[in-house]
Amino acid sequence: MGVNSNRVDHFVSHGTTTTIKIQTEIPMLQQTPLEIHKVRLPPHHTTVQKLRHRLSEIFFPDDPLYSFKNQSWCIKFVLGLQFLFPIFQWGPKYNLSLLRHDIISGLTIASLAIPQGISYAKLANLPPIIGLYSSFVPPLIYSLLGSSKHLAVGPVSIASLVMGSMLSETVSYTQDPILYLKLALTATFFSGVFQSSLGLLRLGFVIDFLSKATLVGFMAGAAIIVSLQQLKGLLGIVHFTSKMQLIPVLASVFKQRDEWSSHTILLGFGFLAFLLTARHISLRKPNLFWVSAAAPLTSVILSTILVFLLRNKVLRVAIIGELPKGVNPPSSNMLYFSGPYLALAIKTGLVTGILSLTEGIAVGRTFAALKNYQVDGNKEMMAIGLMNIAGSCSSCYVTTGSFSRSAVNYNAGAQTTVSNIIMASAVLVTLLFLMPLFYYTPNVILAAIIITAVIGLIDCQAVYKLWKVDKLDCLACLSSFFGVLFVSVPLGLGIAVAISVFKILLHVSRPNTLVLGNIPGTPIFRNLNQYREALRIPSFLILAVESPIYFANSTYLRERILRWVREEEERIEANKENTLKCIILDLTAVTAIDTSGMDTLCELRMMLEKRTLKVVLANPIGNVMEKLHHANVLDSFGVKGVYLTVAEAVIDISSSWKPQP
Amino acid sequence: MGVNSNRVDHFVSHGTTTTIKIQTEIPMLQQTPLEIHKVRLPPHHTTVQKLRHRLSEIFFPDDPLYSFKNQSWCIKFVLGLQFLFPIFQWGPKYNLSLLRHDIISGLTIASLAIPQGISYAKLANLPPIIGLYSSFVPPLIYSLLGSSKHLAVGPVSIASLVMGSMLSETVSYTQDPILYLKLALTATFFSGVFQSSLGLLRLGFVIDFLSKATLVGFMAGAAIIVSLQQLKGLLGIVHFTSKMQLIPVLASVFKQRDEWSSHTILLGFGFLAFLLTARHISLRKPNLFWVSAAAPLTSVILSTILVFLLRNKVLRVAIIGELPKGVNPPSSNMLYFSGPYLALAIKTGLVTGILSLTEGIAVGRTFAALKNYQVDGNKEMMAIGLMNIAGSCSSCYVTTGSFSRSAVNYNAGAQTTVSNIIMASAVLVTLLFLMPLFYYTPNVILAAIIITAVIGLIDCQAVYKLWKVDKLDCLACLSSFFGVLFVSVPLGLGIAVAISVFKILLHVSRPNTLVLGNIPGTPIFRNLNQYREALRIPSFLILAVESPIYFANSTYLRERILRWVREEEERIEANKENTLKCIILDLTAVTAIDTSGMDTLCELRMMLEKRTLKVVLANPIGNVMEKLHHANVLDSFGVKGVYLTVAEAVIDISSSWKPQP
Repeated sequence: MGVNSNRVDHFVSHGTTTTIKIQTEIPMLQQTPLEIHKVRLPPHHTTVQKLRHRLSEIFFPDDPLYSFKNQSWCIKFVLGLQFLFPIFQWGPKYNLSLLRHDIISGLTIASLAIPQGISYAKLANLPPIIGLYSSFVPPLIYSLLGSSKHLAVGPVSIASLVMGSMLSETVSYTQDPILYLKLALTATFFSGVFQSSLGLLRLGFVIDFLSKATLVGFMAGAAIIVSLQQLKGLLGIVHFTSKMQLIPVLASVFKQRDEWSSHTILLGFGFLAFLLTARHISLRKPNLFWVSAAAPLTSVILSTILVFLLRNKVLRVAIIGELPKGVNPPSSNMLYFSGPYLALAIKTGLVTGILSLTEGIAVGRTFAALKNYQVDGNKEMMAIGLMNIAGSCSSCYVTTGSFSRSAVNYNAGAQTTVSNIIMASAVLVTLLFLMPLFYYTPNVILAAIIITAVIGLIDCQAVYKLWKVDKLDCLACLSSFFGVLFVSVPLGLGIAVAISVFKILLHVSRPNTLVLGNIPGTPIFRNLNQYREALRIPSFLILAVESPIYFANSTYLRERILRWVREEEERIEANKENTLKCIILDLTAVTAIDTSGMDTLCELRMMLEKRTLKVVLANPIGNVMEKLHHANVLDSFGVKGVYLTVAEAVIDISSSWKPQP
Repeated sequence: MGVNSNRVDHFVSHGTTTTIKIQTEIPMLQQTPLEIHKVRLPPHHTTVQKLRHRLSEIFFPDDPLYSFKNQSWCIKFVLGLQFLFPIFQWGPKYNLSLLRHDIISGLTIASLAIPQGISYAKLANLPPIIGLYSSFVPPLIYSLLGSSKHLAVGPVSIASLVMGSMLSETVSYTQDPILYLKLALTATFFSGVFQSSLGLLRLGFVIDFLSKATLVGFMAGAAIIVSLQQLKGLLGIVHFTSKMQLIPVLASVFKQRDEWSSHTILLGFGFLAFLLTARHISLRKPNLFWVSAAAPLTSVILSTILVFLLRNKVLRVAIIGELPKGVNPPSSNMLYFSGPYLALAIKTGLVTGILSLTEGIAVGRTFAALKNYQVDGNKEMMAIGLMNIAGSCSSCYVTTGSFSRSAVNYNAGAQTTVSNIIMASAVLVTLLFLMPLFYYTPNVILAAIIITAVIGLIDCQAVYKLWKVDKLDCLACLSSFFGVLFVSVPLGLGIAVAISVFKILLHVSRPNTLVLGNIPGTPIFRNLNQYREALRIPSFLILAVESPIYFANSTYLRERILRWVREEEERIEANKENTLKCIILDLTAVTAIDTSGMDTLCELRMMLEKRTLKVVLANPIGNVMEKLHHANVLDSFGVKGVYLTVAEAVIDISSSWKPQP
């Protein structure tokens, strides 16, 4: 048997010596021991079974309790404890070598967390001490509940910025600092409740709707706004706008030119250059991570000493001033559950909650992937949520896993969440004994630290990659960027989510339909546009529908398929080929169908059959087949109306034409 | 060559005498003149070309100007005229025989339109005469612009109900009828503007998001509310609630029991029984359509005569009273473009606009499909929109194609939109000369007519079919039904749309993944669950991903695929089969991918390769292939990482293993 007949064999389902001349005429079969496979219905399930399956796919796709199966009660109890408190999982195996790594990384992130905590609290318009409180209690809670080994917990820039901007739109933090603090704590409480209930109800997929593309734009816009706002500190301006848009901030910078302070500017830009250089070195050589990790604390120490030494000279630089000593005071009495600002607190809580959750989960997953372990999204949500609820009762504002500090933690060799405990201990020592040392720390250093931290959020390369790969993603990214920059931070976020959802709906309502051709010598049918070697089969039009057939696209698909038929007929007429006789709809990629979709199929069949065109379906998948069956659509297509593959449909139908001419 | 070896041939891409024992061991190839096909990239297009293609698919999927191609200027002008005014298309071919049919059907629908017009105007809390005005101007405009031959244009129940309920929530139609009328006309104007701009901007797909399932529920709920509200007229109650929810309406009926009028009840239920019987007869025998078509006018005439004859007796029945004579007065001075109620008018216009558009287009398409001609959705929207704009300037409220009257029109043999002109003429005669005859028409008859008309909107069979075919569709249907019944009409509609969108998002964020097996003796791989004859290939796990890989599902898919791998490894261990070596991801149904999706693929590959599992892709389609290429994902998978078919992947990979053991 030669190569050629083998090829043909291949095209025919089970023929032995058949020949097909595809290019010139209708495929002909000289001998037809043709075995046409039946398209099967999936096994029958009751509604309850289907519902249970569907719900378990929605809420428990990872089958979280699989390790509990077939275990004794005693083991189940231990597993349950480990499930709730991951510390019991790695705790028993913990040893001194691991501790050594965790101490080093814990102290490293503490040196970063202390200046950043103070700075971020100022970003949220809160007293600096709140930032340190927030770096003490939440890390302790997370180390008990969290499943990521590398997450460094504490206040973060984006959530601080958003909280500051949303609350200060309504309440002035200078005129009514107590109310402002109450609202911040209440918002933290609600963000915690929101986060933990997302985890508890296993609705973690909500955060997936913040696509990476829109987040890139959102973060870059927020970073620019934050950096520009820091010009207040860097230039020493006293009267500054509280607005967050680009134009009022820039206007405010230039309007208050008489307030610019040369000492502050000198100090600020000097240390900013130092911090940026340190950051640059660490970026170039990742094993020099400690250079950028140590730089903030070094700057704080150096600048404090400088200001202290020159305190009697005419140095007009704003300083932090007195900070209270001692650990977190309880604050559950500060929560605010009624009154006119409750709605504002809830809204702020939701927005900062979802943002901090997104950051925390993304960071956790990034480092988990690098070390090849898994982070359970829903469990992480509960951990972060509980940590914020606890935080709101102990004078902490909203916290999550910080990207920059987690990266330092990872590079410093953290092995478990013990590094968070070490960090919290260092913060505790600071809170108890070292607070007076910050008296002379100039505010301008905090501004420089914030700028250095947020500048990393501007990811031009990611934008370029988006542009190269997906223009619509890039548009979403740019829209959220300009939305944040020119409109407002929450609205920018809203635009980002709306574009993401719109993109899905657009894709759903305008799906692709492809014309397929045969790849010579095989039973394979592929898109004519993608595979130039693929050939049309005379008298057939083979269309692949590339999406579920839904109410949202059924009208479009009907019109589009009719247009394909019309264009094919025009092409045939122009080329004087054999007339079109049969349309095969390849449903391989039709992953679902609803009642509107089935009506469309039936209408198409009716309309085309009135024009003596046969319509058959190829390869409907399980649930589509089942629905077609239940809706009696299969009956209208008839026994010979549904085929397992396009190839079988072509062979069977063209063989039935043979006697006609 | 026996049957058995033939089968094997089939499985191998191009082998000649190969044998594969699929069930027991790794597929082995004894001879491998194996031709593995390359997966091609689609031809290169520039960004501008792609954008143009994409926009034309979104806005011009039907290629509306295709008949203009390659035509002389003169013909293009004629075609353009026909495009804008379909009357020029069929006008020249119009003849007396067609006219005869159109006169009969036109008069038939006029006999229905006159009583329904009066009734529906009362449903919208407008003076009855407005309903007749609305049956005169809009049909004339539509007959010039519309492309459906069978649409009977005029006021409809749902839009009337919604307009009445939305406006009377804020403005009382008894205390301030002039303001109410102004708002109704303004809402009509805005609904026309909205409809025609949807058509002009070719955004017709917006109405597709009102899925059929949700509309079934919405209409049934609205029909029940409307019917219950008619108890006011049927029972002769004077003081009735203006609310639209089930509970206040029912409460109002029973609270005002002392106002029930026995004469009214007798008359009302008598004629209701007559109308329902007539409807029943026509439903049973469609060629007796004229029975139900003539019944309303007959009832009006009979009841008017009855009341007239008994007018001196003690018959306490509310009557219509005096109606002004004459054609539509101009009303452009009544439009209301400023002031506190503008937002209400716009909102009402949008909601009634989208509802009446949905009804009009759906009705047009239904009858077009029956007679096998096409209705251009965007053109219809412009026709309906312009007709409403013109209507708002000539004392008409919102109109569209009515389902019940169009069905009568179709059954009465209408051939063109001339039947609408005939109907409008009959209404004109009524307006000019016959208005005094309605003086004694009892209101209770209008209530009976409305009930008979809307009762057809309750489609229990459709609900049953939904339940049988798609439980989630049925849930959407029931939610919108109860939303309308217990909450409010616009909110019910909102719930309906939200559920439809949620259903899409749910489908997108929790897609199916299927395990494929080989159908013995073929190169076909199908879902193991659907095809019991399909067999697993030892050492391979073949997964088909059944959706685009997006930001919205990439996390889920990663977790789910890892779970499939885990479960497969457990199964293999339990059955003591060959260890798992390779995972093939069949991307046939992956119709799109974004940056998050590509990151997921890369992460999966990395994570599984760390566990010495090979990951390859099968059959990525054009745009997915292109994106994988641009993002350099293909490089990381390597040359042998992407195959045209699953079968080729299995053969090639298993043959590469041969030397190892």
